[in-house]
This record gives sequence, structure tokens and C-alpha cells, in this order.
Amino acid sequence: MNRIPVAILGATGTVGQRFVQLLADHPWFEVKALAASDRSIGKPYAEACHWLLPSPMPTAVRDLLVQPIAPGIEARLVFSALPSEIAQTAEPAFAQAGYVVCSNTSVHRLDADVPLLIPEVNAEHTALIETQRRQRGWSGWIVTSANCTTTQLALALKPLHDTFGLRRVFVVSMQAISGAGYPGVPSFDIVDNLIPFINGEEEKVEQESRKLLGVCRQNRIEDASFVVSAQCNRVPVREGHTECLALEFERRATPQQVIDALESFRPSAQVAALPSTPAQPIIVRREPDRPQPILDRDTGNGMAVVVGRVRPCPLFDVRLVLLGHNTIRGAAGGAIHNAELLVAQGWLRP
Amino acid sequence: MNRIPVAILGATGTVGQRFVQLLADHPWFEVKALAASDRSIGKPYAEACHWLLPSPMPTAVRDLLVQPIAPGIEARLVFSALPSEIAQTAEPAFAQAGYVVCSNTSVHRLDADVPLLIPEVNAEHTALIETQRRQRGWSGWIVTSANCTTTQLALALKPLHDTFGLRRVFVVSMQAISGAGYPGVPSFDIVDNLIPFINGEEEKVEQESRKLLGVCRQNRIEDASFVVSAQCNRVPVREGHTECLALEFERRATPQQVIDALESFRPSAQVAALPSTPAQPIIVRREPDRPQPILDRDTGNGMAVVVGRVRPCPLFDVRLVLLGHNTIRGAAGGAIHNAELLVAQGWLRP
Amino acid sequence: MNRIPVAILGATGTVGQRFVQLLADHPWFEVKALAASDRSIGKPYAEACHWLLPSPMPTAVRDLLVQPIAPGIEARLVFSALPSEIAQTAEPAFAQAGYVVCSNTSVHRLDADVPLLIPEVNAEHTALIETQRRQRGWSGWIVTSANCTTTQLALALKPLHDTFGLRRVFVVSMQAISGAGYPGVPSFDIVDNLIPFINGEEEKVEQESRKLLGVCRQNRIEDASFVVSAQCNRVPVREGHTECLALEFERRATPQQVIDALESFRPSAQVAALPSTPAQPIIVRREPDRPQPILDRDTGNGMAVVVGRVRPCPLFDVRLVLLGHNTIRGAAGGAIHNAELLVAQGWLRP
Amino acid sequence: MNRIPVAILGATGTVGQRFVQLLADHPWFEVKALAASDRSIGKPYAEACHWLLPSPMPTAVRDLLVQPIAPGIEARLVFSALPSEIAQTAEPAFAQAGYVVCSNTSVHRLDADVPLLIPEVNAEHTALIETQRRQRGWSGWIVTSANCTTTQLALALKPLHDTFGLRRVFVVSMQAISGAGYPGVPSFDIVDNLIPFINGEEEKVEQESRKLLGVCRQNRIEDASFVVSAQCNRVPVREGHTECLALEFERRATPQQVIDALESFRPSAQVAALPSTPAQPIIVRREPDRPQPILDRDTGNGMAVVVGRVRPCPLFDVRLVLLGHNTIRGAAGGAIHNAELLVAQGWLRP
Repeated sequence: MNRIPVAILGATGTVGQRFVQLLADHPWFEVKALAASDRSIGKPYAEACHWLLPSPMPTAVRDLLVQPIAPGIEARLVFSALPSEIAQTAEPAFAQAGYVVCSNTSVHRLDADVPLLIPEVNAEHTALIETQRRQRGWSGWIVTSANCTTTQLALALKPLHDTFGLRRVFVVSMQAISGAGYPGVPSFDIVDNLIPFINGEEEKVEQESRKLLGVCRQNRIEDASFVVSAQCNRVPVREGHTECLALEFERRATPQQVIDALESFRPSAQVAALPSTPAQPIIVRREPDRPQPILDRDTGNGMAVVVGRVRPCPLFDVRLVLLGHNTIRGAAGGAIHNAELLVAQGWLRP
Repeated sequence: MNRIPVAILGATGTVGQRFVQLLADHPWFEVKALAASDRSIGKPYAEACHWLLPSPMPTAVRDLLVQPIAPGIEARLVFSALPSEIAQTAEPAFAQAGYVVCSNTSVHRLDADVPLLIPEVNAEHTALIETQRRQRGWSGWIVTSANCTTTQLALALKPLHDTFGLRRVFVVSMQAISGAGYPGVPSFDIVDNLIPFINGEEEKVEQESRKLLGVCRQNRIEDASFVVSAQCNRVPVREGHTECLALEFERRATPQQVIDALESFRPSAQVAALPSTPAQPIIVRREPDRPQPILDRDTGNGMAVVVGRVRPCPLFDVRLVLLGHNTIRGAAGGAIHNAELLVAQGWLRP
Repeated sequence: MNRIPVAILGATGTVGQRFVQLLADHPWFEVKALAASDRSIGKPYAEACHWLLPSPMPTAVRDLLVQPIAPGIEARLVFSALPSEIAQTAEPAFAQAGYVVCSNTSVHRLDADVPLLIPEVNAEHTALIETQRRQRGWSGWIVTSANCTTTQLALALKPLHDTFGLRRVFVVSMQAISGAGYPGVPSFDIVDNLIPFINGEEEKVEQESRKLLGVCRQNRIEDASFVVSAQCNRVPVREGHTECLALEFERRATPQQVIDALESFRPSAQVAALPSTPAQPIIVRREPDRPQPILDRDTGNGMAVVVGRVRPCPLFDVRLVLLGHNTIRGAAGGAIHNAELLVAQGWLRP
Repeated sequence: MNRIPVAILGATGTVGQRFVQLLADHPWFEVKALAASDRSIGKPYAEACHWLLPSPMPTAVRDLLVQPIAPGIEARLVFSALPSEIAQTAEPAFAQAGYVVCSNTSVHRLDADVPLLIPEVNAEHTALIETQRRQRGWSGWIVTSANCTTTQLALALKPLHDTFGLRRVFVVSMQAISGAGYPGVPSFDIVDNLIPFINGEEEKVEQESRKLLGVCRQNRIEDASFVVSAQCNRVPVREGHTECLALEFERRATPQQVIDALESFRPSAQVAALPSTPAQPIIVRREPDRPQPILDRDTGNGMAVVVGRVRPCPLFDVRLVLLGHNTIRGAAGGAIHNAELLVAQGWLRP
């Protein structure tokens, strides 16, 4: 099929670079435009962008001239990695102008008429798009991907909530430095150290996870009723967020039942066929000391969640550890995945 | 007063070195002998020991010849940093031979007649010593200090349990590499990585904390009745264990009440007067991003526990973060502290 | 063509694992046997080996039973990642028994009749094989790959020596922890630290580089006459050795001439056609702050050397920085590359 | 004696904080004022400053209100940790207004009439002060301390130059992240990485070292005639710069002679009596693997330079490794040391 022309908003930042990298050979999308803040405008991307990824900058984008963050860009779909204060007005402007906006920014995630999507988890939440367009009078629309820590959490919780009914979730995260962007965390703050605080992160995990696992009824989302308590830490790891969970269910579950539910989880055929959907979204490891960031973060090209240490909890039903790639599944890869879903569902045609 | 002659068992390891360092200028104890495994015996300590601490090896011990780990050593008190398999038989042998054994090893911690001590927490548990000596027919005895993660946890829980009654405790630790000894954690396992597993650690935290906060009745300890769920991780930090807690009490408590209980906690006058007792055993920080290992681990010469982020929990009463120095308060410093308590209580006379 | 059956000696160590990984889909070689020390023998590789690489263990080797390190193995070619003390006798035993031994071990590198090979640098040194077989009465033979630091150094020096004549070389290396094997460098020695010493490394760099760039005359190697002064440091980097060089030539050379010589360097057509030869063995970067391990170590699938900061030297002719992947080009990849050369030159037939 | 009232310019940065810490209990100086850039002015220091050092902020400065960087401050001596662009005009303004300026900034270091000082190395260079005041018509004056890497280098070179006559010096540095200030090096640039480039650093090392070891004749400095080639790298170490040196002398010297010259080096009696002068400015270690940042950076309270691995060089006379504390001896401690020298020489009276 003809590839859909897409643009990346905030293309020079770390998440923007991941978009560029992951879209380089995408079968459905073709990067036609890159937009960034004032001081980059008019420069070739290769010059405007301090490239931070190990793989080289894709040749196709090197000479694209960076454009302003405003409608008029030659694209039908825009991926947004904008800072919240810019996204606040820019994303609606694009949606109003007819663009489809797949955003990785937090600012519109909890809006009642904006889908917060993970294809394997809640593909049916795209039903909100109609409401959004009608209410706001937009020809385009916005869909959002979740916070990085929340994304991998919600993906692992999905089959467990479906099977056993979640009641209470404790989560303590150990998050990679890439999650803070660039320059992000000063090295003097994190070498031989950790920081037990990430501004706003715990609230996002606690709220977004309930919307993600909520039910779409009459074009609105009823949040799931379980309660999450999140504690978020920054650790000296480049990529990959690790989370220690304790879970209480409506219906008692043994570790083996939890493992079975996680391993047998498969997305719908439509979602399974998306280019970015990993063969198995949730991998369960049996070794006592997995998952580990360095060994597991690239599983499924960074789109799978790896679970380990599923064991009983003296207080709740089970404890487990999960890990995901925060700048792939948890950021750029997740937003691209959502765009693929829009195509598969027919919202967006090649 | 005359200083009591002491020996260090396992003197060449990392905890052994901390004993050497912390005892260098101790007002009550004088290191007279160092014992270690076979290949070190007969060598001067300066030659037998691969010194790993930033401060230089104390002059007084450099020329001490390393002795075998067996009674006959010129000392009345021995500090044990032995591996479990050696401590299993060596510590009882010393106790039988009349030595006072202050052990940092796990093997006897849960024995019913062996005190597991933190002076500020359960000084009265030394009452077990009489039972131990009578039952075992020993002229000496063994007292133990707790696992590093447990020590700092129990110290912070003490005033909260006394004031509000603990019911349920979730704890996720992020532990320093020094806790694994030397050579310990291979660098290839931990640079740009973390390991969500420490063998046997979670069980120790869950069991020892209940004995530490238990009540001594008729010469036996009744474990505290609260339940702990622990998840332990190794992170690339040199020194200082950080713990994220969620606490449920018998009697509801607000964050401010918890802060008040922690900050107003003072040990008994007898314990406060010990050389190693910090001016304030528990420090509460108000900054949103504290405690941090690099900034807080040396508080109170590594003997204080630093608490931060005391805040409500959507599931339990409060959440907080605590941090302690794992090889000082959590190991050598803790065992020395216990020995000081024995002197103050009259069990051991100068 | 039919793939040549090969075995890996020392298959469970870090370099052994790299051999396994790099040979998994090799067009010319097929791993038929894995050998390791006593305690692994008889176990399936998946069980015997603590796999340390981010990519999963190749399926084809998981069930291979680990064999003893002794002739009798079903293979014609063996790759050796053995410790020196074992290689000392095991490698000759295999050669005598008719196997072709491609060794990454240091023990035979400087033997007068053993080729020390880098295909792009000194492919003609394989002429020593005949001498070796005749003198030792072996039906097989040994060829060796150089020390990791030396390999990338010699590759970059090759075109410069050919063009300008090397006279004096200063090199200071900053070497990755993977170079020390596993468990290798204790984390307590390297987190927030570096170690300005690697046992035996400087001598290897100084000697091997002269043999590698030496001339083969009448079946013996005349060492190149330049002199190298090497200083080797261990730094907290997982993979990738970085080297700061200062070079003095017989014939004066400007930085631009050096860049031209490096960039225009191409191996012979025979070597260029080997499966592991990178498209361009030496890449020169113009950015002021390259090469960097994290960004450049995987260039050319870890087989290219990346050079940067080519600039004048106030004392010698030029200074530059070079970087290579120490466990790919500098170890397993280099030895495989040598085996490919043997096939291309007809020493070994499919 | 009465303590001299001093101020710190640039008090909220990392070097400014070191000044605050090191001056907290200084016998000769008392911090009376703290100055910083606009957004801090008028705030109490405890509020304006994001304190980054492990030891707590000294009580005496917590409530000092941050002042503008301009004369009028209640102090006779100002320590400057200002960025170059501000120091360019601010330091002369203070000197003109009669203040003694001890600067750690690079901007005036190479001015012909400004002393670049290390007390043990070139105390007699203070003779430039008279010239400076006369030529510029200032009632105060500026003295400067050298770049961090240069300071520890020059200190170690001093006795060698005096004894053997330096001809050529190769130096490759591995520098701590603290040297880049705060926020300084982004963690994403340095975790599992190193950067072989520090902007402007190599030039500073090459030029400043020759001025430091130059001779003061007729109120001007004749630079030393040796030549330095410097290559500077940033490594993931918090504090402590390590340097690998190769040295060529006018008069041949063996490693043992070099060790003797380093170890027997003592400053003048006047300099030895300064509060910050370490008992022995240059320590030589015999272990094969020293100096190391974590073990040696605090030697002599961070004011000593530790040398190790003194050995022959195949190209020059000797090679060695040296290490110093870059933010103590190499920054704030060095500038304070210079101020102490001014007092001892009578330039500044209590």
C-alpha cells in the first residue's frame, strides 16, 4: 500500500529521535516532515539534532529541513513528543486543522473524550474519537499513549484483571535515565546514587492505569475500580523501567495461575497483525533473577513486557517483577503502535 | 577505663574491614587480634588484606599477624563477620570457650535463645543471654545483629509500632553492591543494570523484623504480629540501602503524626550514652527527593536512618522512603553498637 | 556450500558466548560441539552456561551437551577461548590431532611459527602455517588473533604505517569491563572508579602490534621497527575500548593526510569478501567528541574501528582517538574472521 | 588572630559550594557574604542553593542572604567561582574597588601580570601583584588558581623539573564529572560511556603548566620551555582526575630517581605552615594498581597528589599515573590555599 505521510513534532528530543529511528523502515508510514522549536527551524535535521542513539541517524531524514510546530506541515498523521506546555495548544491546533495526532505527551491523556490507548489492552477505546470530533468540532483528532511506567504495567495487568479481577496494586518502579529526556538527569545526581522521586510520575501511574483498564460504555470510559499505590525511583540505568508489584485480586489466584494468564494472553487478531505488535506481548521468565534491564529490555524489539519472580505474597495474592523498554514500548513505539491501530480499524486510510 | 581486648573473626572481608576501621579509635574496645581463613594465617594484616576502604588501614593493625578462627585468641569479645558455613560451628565454639560473640552473621539470628539486637529497638532482649548460657552450658554467649536491610527498617518501624501498632508492611529495597561483600557482584552484572533478586534476603527481612520488634516475655521472644512483604533489588550504588515502604497501622495515622513519631523518637538514656548511638537515630527530611544514598548515607556517621517522602498511601496509611548505611549501621557498626550495649548493661566489664 | 563443522573451546565464558552468538547464523561455519571445563561436562549448554548477552541464547546450541576439552570432538575447526594455562597444552593437542585451531588466547601469539592475524592487516602471515606444521609435525595448526586493545590499534595503524612509516606510538587505553571476562572486575572496584592497571596488557600491546605489522620473509616474521608505549586503564564501560594515541612518522603527515589514509584504506578483494569484513574497516568521524563507546562500538556490527579527533600533536605528528568493540573485533569476531581467511585462502575447504 | 572577612562569588554552583564547605571552619577566613546570579539574589543561601555535597550545608551560611555579584560586599577577600563571561568584567571590578580576588576562573590566568599560583610550586610569582596594581591602577588585585587537571599535573612535575629538567610531557587525563559543574554532564552521555573531549581543556593544560613552572624575572614570567601534549577525557567518576603521563627529561632519570624526587619534595617552611598545605603534597604508592579515584582522592583532605606506577617508558624516560581531587586541590581548595599564601607573605593582613 502507499505509505501514509507522517510528521514528528518535537523531533529533536530523545523521544523524537526514537520516532525517527522506529519509523525509518515502517511499512505503513513515511516520515515527510520534522518539526521542532524555534532555534532548529530551517536547519537540516542532521544539523539541528544532537543525535543520541547508537544506531546512525536514518539517511532519509538527514536533509529534511526542520519546520515550525504548526499546521501546514505535509502530513496526515503527526506524532507528538512535545513538552506539555507546547502540546497544550499545539496538539488541538493540529487536530482542528484535520490532522490525526498520536501523542506521547501527558497533557490530554485524561481528557474524557481522548482515547488513552494500548492496542493489546483497550483497542475499543478508539470509540471516543467520534465523540471528541463532534464535541470539539474538529476534522482531525487526538489519541494518546500512556506514561512509560504505566504502559508496561497496564499491559501486564490486562490479562490478570480480565481473569481474576484486580482489587489492589502496589508498584515500586526503578526507572531509567532516558525517561527524563535530554539533558535530563545530571550525572552528578545519579552516578553511585538513586533518586526516590520523579515529579508527577506516581500520580500518572495511579490514574492512567485505571483509565487504560476501564470500560468504554456509551462513548465514555468508566475507570477500572482497583486502586494503585505507586512509588517511583530513578536509577542509573540507561534504558528499561523495572517494577516490583504486589497484587490483590477479587478471586484468589496462585502464582501458577497468574503465570498461565500472562503467558496465554494474546491480543485480538486485528491487533496481532499490526507491524509493531510483538509475537508475544508478555514474556514470563522462570530464572530467579530476571527480568534485568540489560538482558531483557530489547525483548520483542523493545515492545514486549518481561515478567519474572511470580511468587506468593504474604499480604496480597502474588508478587512479581516486570520490565519494559521505556522509550520504545513506553514512548515512541507505543504511539506508533496506536497509529497502526487507527489504520487497522479504518480511521485512517492509506 | 581500660579498653576491652577484642578480636575480629573474618577480618579480611569487607565487613571485617569495616570492623577494623570503626574500632580503630573506639573508646571502650581495643583490637588485639584478627582472625581469618587459612590462606591468610600467619601473615601481617597489611599483607593478608586487600584493603578496600577509602580511609587508610589503621596503623595499629597493620602488623598484627592473622590468626586461625578458633578459641585461644587473646580477647574477651569477638566480632564475627564470618560466612554462615564457618560461623555455624565457629561462633558456638567461641561462646563455649567463654568469649562474648557479637555476630553479624545470619546463621544464629533466629535461634530462640539468641538475642537479635538493635540497641534503640530492643535492648531488653539481652535477657535471653542467661537462658542461652544455661541451656547450652556455655560460659560465653552469642548476640547477633540483624540483616542490613532489616536493621534500618526495624529502627524506623520501632516508634511507629509503639505508637500506632503495625499491621502490614510492604517494603521494596534498592540495595548497594557493598552488601554482597567482595568480590561480590560482578561489574558486568550491574553497570547499566539492576538485579531484582538477592538470595535469601526477602525471607530475612520478613522474619527478622518481627523478632526485632517482638516482646520478651519469660525469657523468650514473642514475635510481633504484623506481616511484612519484602522485595529486594541490587542497584549500582556503592553504599546505602534505600527502601520504599507502605504501612498499615492498627490505629489510623496521618503523615504528620508519623513524622512526629519518627522525629520524637529517642532511645533510653542508657542507649543514648553509648559511643555509637547517633544524636538522633531517625532523621526526617522534608525535601521531595530525599533520602538519597550519596547525600544521606553518612548521616550520624553512618548510624542514623534517614526517612523522607512521608505521604499518604491510597491503599495503606502512609508511604515513605528510608535509607541507611548498610555496612556501618547495617553491619559492623551495628554489631559494635550491640557490644557497647552489653558493656552498658553490665554483661561485660572493662 | 556445506558449512564446516566447528567447535568452541571454553564455550561457557564471556568470549565463548560471543563465539556462540556470532556463529549462530554464520554462512560458512556450523557449531557442532561445545567444550568447557569439568563441572559443565555432560550438561546441556543451556544449563551449563550462565548466559550474559542481551540477545537470547541461539536455539541450535541449547541442547548440545558440553564436552571435555580434548581432541575427539566432531569438528574440523576449533575456536579457542580457553584460559592461558589450559590453552598451553590443549591447543597443541588439537593441532597435533589434525584440527585447525583459531585461538583468541594469548599463550601462543608470539611463537615464531604461529601466525598472529588480522585479515585486513597481515593476511600473508598465514605463510607460517607450513613452517609450523613441518617443524612441529602436526597435521593441524594454530593461528591466533591478537589482544583486544592491540587488534583495533593495529588495524588503525596499518594504513598509516604503510603510508608514512611509524616511528613512535604512544597509546593510553580506557578499556571496558567485558575485557576482563566473567565474573571479572568486581563492581565494588569500578563503580565511581577506574583502575589504572591491567595485568600484562601493556606488554601485549607493545609486542603484538609490532608482530602484526611486521613483514613475513622466508617464513618468518620480522617485527616492525616502530616502538610503542602503552598505558592501560579499566573504566566503567560495558563494551568498547577507547584509545588515545600520539603518533610520530618517518615521513611527516598532516591530520588531513592521516584522515585520507585511514578513510581510503581498503582490504584486498579476497579479504573484503569475507563474511565478517565490514564494508569499511576504519571509519573517521569529524565531530569533536567522537568516538564514544555507547555510540560507536557497534559500528560495522562491532567489526569496524572508529577514529576521531585527528589533530596535530605538539610533540609528535598527530594525535587521535580510536575505539573498537573489544569482545567482537577484539576477541570472538576477530578469531572467526581469521577462520574465514583460512577458508578463502584455501587452507580449509568446505 | 581575627579572621579575615571573605565573600564567595558564584556561591551556589558546585565550586562555590566547595568554597562554602572548605571555609566553614577555616582558621584565617570567615565567610561573611555570598554572591550569585540574579535569580538567587535576596534569598537565604539555604533556599537559593541546591546543595550537592554529602556533608550538610554549614549552619553559619544558611541564613546569609545572597547578594549581587558587585563590589559593595562586606569582605576584603573574594573567592571567585564565576563563569568566564561574568568573571571577565566582575573580577576586575572587584580588584579595582580594592578587593583581593582569588579566582578559580580561567579568564585571567594567562594575563601577563596576573599570578597563576600553586603555593608549593611557584609562591614567588606573587611578585606580579605589584606590577598588576601599578599597571592597572587598582587598589586590589587578582591572583588565580590553575585548571584542575593542570594543578595536580604541575604539582607533580615541579620536583621533577627542578631535578631533571622536563623536556617533553605526554598526558592523557580521565576526568571526573564534577569538573563539569552542575547540571554539567547529562547522565545519558556518561553512564556506560566516556567522552574523549572536554572543550578547551587540552589547551589549558598545555599552556598553564608552562606558566606555573616558569621563572619570574623582572616582574614577568618566562614560561618553562618544555612542551606538553594533553588529551582529556570525561569518565563516569564523581570526583578525582586521573592522568597517565610519559616524561622525557633533560637529564636521564630512572624510575627510582623519579620516586625519590617526588617523595622528598617538601614546600618551603612558609608554605608548609599554611592551613591547607598537606603534610606531604605528593604521595607515591607502590601497589601496581594505584592511584584510584575512590581510594586516593581524599588523601591529605583532597589536597595531596597521589602518584603510582612509576616505571620506565620505551619512548621517554618514565611513565607514571597521578591523581588529585579536582574540586578540592583542583578548584576551591587551591584558591583558598593561594589566599593563605597571600596572608603568609604579608600581602593581606588579618
